[in-house]
Amino acid sequence: MNPIYNFSAGPAMLHPSVVRATSEASVNYNNSGMSLMEMSHRSQPVVDMVDETEQLVKKLLHLSDEYQVLFLQGGASLQFCMVPLNLLEDNQTADYTNTGTWSQKAINEAKMYGTINEISSSKDSNYNHIPKDLRHSKNSTYLHLTSNNTIFGTQWSTFPVPLNENSYLVADMSSDIFSREFDVNDFGLIYAGAQKNIGPAGVTLVIIKQDIIKKISRKIPTMMKYQTHIDKKSMFNTPPVMAIYAVNRSLNWLHENGGVAKMESKNRAKAKKLYDEIERNPLFKCPVHTDDRSIMNVPFIFNEKFDENRFLGFCHDRGLQTLKGHRSVGGFRASIYNAMPEAGVDALIDAMRDYENFV
Amino acid sequence: MNPIYNFSAGPAMLHPSVVRATSEASVNYNNSGMSLMEMSHRSQPVVDMVDETEQLVKKLLHLSDEYQVLFLQGGASLQFCMVPLNLLEDNQTADYTNTGTWSQKAINEAKMYGTINEISSSKDSNYNHIPKDLRHSKNSTYLHLTSNNTIFGTQWSTFPVPLNENSYLVADMSSDIFSREFDVNDFGLIYAGAQKNIGPAGVTLVIIKQDIIKKISRKIPTMMKYQTHIDKKSMFNTPPVMAIYAVNRSLNWLHENGGVAKMESKNRAKAKKLYDEIERNPLFKCPVHTDDRSIMNVPFIFNEKFDENRFLGFCHDRGLQTLKGHRSVGGFRASIYNAMPEAGVDALIDAMRDYENFV
Repeated sequence: MNPIYNFSAGPAMLHPSVVRATSEASVNYNNSGMSLMEMSHRSQPVVDMVDETEQLVKKLLHLSDEYQVLFLQGGASLQFCMVPLNLLEDNQTADYTNTGTWSQKAINEAKMYGTINEISSSKDSNYNHIPKDLRHSKNSTYLHLTSNNTIFGTQWSTFPVPLNENSYLVADMSSDIFSREFDVNDFGLIYAGAQKNIGPAGVTLVIIKQDIIKKISRKIPTMMKYQTHIDKKSMFNTPPVMAIYAVNRSLNWLHENGGVAKMESKNRAKAKKLYDEIERNPLFKCPVHTDDRSIMNVPFIFNEKFDENRFLGFCHDRGLQTLKGHRSVGGFRASIYNAMPEAGVDALIDAMRDYENFV
Repeated sequence: MNPIYNFSAGPAMLHPSVVRATSEASVNYNNSGMSLMEMSHRSQPVVDMVDETEQLVKKLLHLSDEYQVLFLQGGASLQFCMVPLNLLEDNQTADYTNTGTWSQKAINEAKMYGTINEISSSKDSNYNHIPKDLRHSKNSTYLHLTSNNTIFGTQWSTFPVPLNENSYLVADMSSDIFSREFDVNDFGLIYAGAQKNIGPAGVTLVIIKQDIIKKISRKIPTMMKYQTHIDKKSMFNTPPVMAIYAVNRSLNWLHENGGVAKMESKNRAKAKKLYDEIERNPLFKCPVHTDDRSIMNVPFIFNEKFDENRFLGFCHDRGLQTLKGHRSVGGFRASIYNAMPEAGVDALIDAMRDYENFV
């Protein structure tokens, strides 16, 4: 039987060691005889595990002590409102770039608070590129971006710089955090749902520079305040312990295998191979501008009106699963996050070549 | 070696079949060869599993079609603000009973919206009873209560009735849902963090009667609106799939073992045994008024100034874990949720008797 390679956009593949360790901890955590699911979040083993996970995030991203690491619930979707709720007064302005569905959602939520200027958009071209000509506002509090666009397969290759000295970047990095190196010091806040590169669904990583949290005049529910979770080290209420543990194992695996720099070179090699095949193979093309192609999510479509389900079935029979493209783009999409081995990409490329000869 | 009995107040014991099934699904979900952690929440197996869990909630609680069942994130603590945010206009009033730390937190959050009347409180007696003399407001939109108080070991044995015909009950049932039968028709909304009676941390059950959701004039973030999650059947964004699966297995176990009525009789028998021993044993006493004692969380203290850590160590050596009382009450606390077998309560009673002879 062929091994199964899961190209899902998220929840997505995890490294086998992460899957095994999480399964084992579900019945017997570190030989305690107890399931990690049953252990109090106030118990020392759980407190130590969450603390270690925080330290791994700091180490892998080279975070200075100015940054706090939080493990929250609600996904990036809850961050879309938490960010402006905590950081933007009603009479202030924030700049948002619009590079896809998730950017648009972030913009919609932020509009409830302050003035939101959409300073760039590729919406008119179905988000097939990253528009880099930004119409910065004069007094923007922060500049928001989606670092990688899961649906459209675009990615900021270099990040923009805010216009003002007091301004900072805020980024939704759900689908490419820990996949490539970047200078975190340009960012005031980074958030990421875990279920693509670092774990299962149910936990959201938030990295926040302490000094961007200023006194704000609106009332904010306690659970929606970043400071609440900073003060309580992500334990204001019961955190999603099992999901954090899977993140812990993912980050340990990353750390033991050369960290983000090493992972980035592997990811770039995997993506290059796949894009090269899409370019070479007369059956396929990629709808995304060359410079803005994502190394995480690779959308591709047929050059002609072939039967997409037939190719999906052809792949599925070889263990290549969840390759159907998002309905906004059509065709196919291969999500090749950190945990996708090069062998999975090779198997997909083989299938594309064989299909070329087959049809 | 003695079996381990975990008396933690939450996260707490799960039935061994739930632990095993969750661990198995973490590596190989229903013989698919894929981990449930890696499966898209849009895939049919996951959609079906979440749907089945919803149906189990409806069946076990005898819910009519007027009620919606949601699986959210953020715990009861997020519900403390979501409830008034969605249900209470600024110029409206809601009644809150104050029976402990969690009631107080719910009150504090609700005070950001509308007028909140604390219509009863046992705070002055360290919450050692449930005050039933309620000073109802004339036009209260809803009446909020905490059905069971994990910290203080009190529980509403019968629920109050709102004064007005259009009013309804809202309850935090985190620590006793599915432990006893009750008439759900008096309730407009029930919420419960899963990590006590129905699963691990990371998912919150919300049961809501559709007709209590009225148009409200304030702006509510999309993720904080109940209607969002109703419309999308808890799949507006990626739900905490693994935690929902553990709830699924817990509810299946409950259903296969006679449902809530059968569980209630077991729970009452367990609790009676333990309270009887506390009454009989000259070493111990229970600080809670007899009529209001919880069948889920049993606090007890020494009659004299004995060394508490010594008794905790004595119990721990016998596999009886996490019996330390909450700092607000002191002494000991045995949480005996659905998954605690009678044998665990018997083992604790034996330890209490042996300790009586030992000291």
